[in-house]
Amino acid sequence: MRFSPIIEELIQALKVLPGVGQKSAQRMAFQLLERHREGGERLAVALQTAIEQVGHCSVCRTLTEHSTCGLCADTLRRDSGLLCIVESPADVVAIEQTSQYQGCYFVLMGHLSPLDGIGPDEIGLDILAQRLEQESITEIILATNPTVEGEATAHFIADLARRHQIRTSRIAHGVPVGGELEYVDQATLGHAFSGRKWIENN
Amino acid sequence: MRFSPIIEELIQALKVLPGVGQKSAQRMAFQLLERHREGGERLAVALQTAIEQVGHCSVCRTLTEHSTCGLCADTLRRDSGLLCIVESPADVVAIEQTSQYQGCYFVLMGHLSPLDGIGPDEIGLDILAQRLEQESITEIILATNPTVEGEATAHFIADLARRHQIRTSRIAHGVPVGGELEYVDQATLGHAFSGRKWIENN
Repeated sequence: MRFSPIIEELIQALKVLPGVGQKSAQRMAFQLLERHREGGERLAVALQTAIEQVGHCSVCRTLTEHSTCGLCADTLRRDSGLLCIVESPADVVAIEQTSQYQGCYFVLMGHLSPLDGIGPDEIGLDILAQRLEQESITEIILATNPTVEGEATAHFIADLARRHQIRTSRIAHGVPVGGELEYVDQATLGHAFSGRKWIENN
Repeated sequence: MRFSPIIEELIQALKVLPGVGQKSAQRMAFQLLERHREGGERLAVALQTAIEQVGHCSVCRTLTEHSTCGLCADTLRRDSGLLCIVESPADVVAIEQTSQYQGCYFVLMGHLSPLDGIGPDEIGLDILAQRLEQESITEIILATNPTVEGEATAHFIADLARRHQIRTSRIAHGVPVGGELEYVDQATLGHAFSGRKWIENN
């Protein structure tokens, strides 16, 4: 026995969401239909609107409903000559929340992963190469994730930058603030030692 | 800094789903917009359709797009005189999958919870009382969850059934099949002992 066709279709459709299986989808469907119909309505409208209107920023490739995103439209940022390379739009938000960086971004929307058929063109490195050619960029900051794929992507972009003679840096890896040495993994601790800084005697 | 308004609205709308917080909602929004737009489209349509068309079965209160659900429309089941009381439509599906029960259902769509303002009328016990009056029901099987609220609800319905002089049973609680005694909690093991059955000498 199964649910009635319309409920069944809703459950199957909810399973397209990442991390949602049969049981969670059932729970979501019942919750929406039983207790929160206006929330479901709002979700349907928001999805439809976003799918119709959201595209990629023509400059940095992040998701936006405008042809150029707010950060790329900021001329102060474009004049800074700084370009930070990240994997996803969520990374941009995380970096903006630090208020430490006032330059432009380039969002790869993924990382190099040849086994999955994701090569340089799929993560927009052709567009990046064009920008390096045309704009006067003085520093590239590589802020891809410290995973195997993220590191490989960073190396690949560092090579590209070298060919355009642009100085390139990688964000620091080490012990997170508030973390305890005892619970930090070996690789991170290794990075923390190899990346140690001199304390200046004043 | 936040996402652009349409993306932000999608993230907020996804947070109405149970168990979805800010980070999961972001992940879902990016996944749908970046890799799975047709899935998002399908979800929007399924939600809209379900919200417009799905209502409650007039007989057993389960969620269905028809005025009477498939199980209640089955005259063989209605003639059986058996009525099983469950908390949610998912429970009906679980019981149907056992193929052990061929009677009707009554779906409470919740359980008694006075602190949350959920009294007898909110879980349809007025409709149930009417059915007990009008139909010739010979046995009520209480299959609410073995939680504090589920047990309280079962007791309340057992009282109601007693007033209508209908025999009432509660599903058995005990050690789950395939479980190991060592890992079963005290309450369940207590139920398993108090509910033990004689083995007939043949």
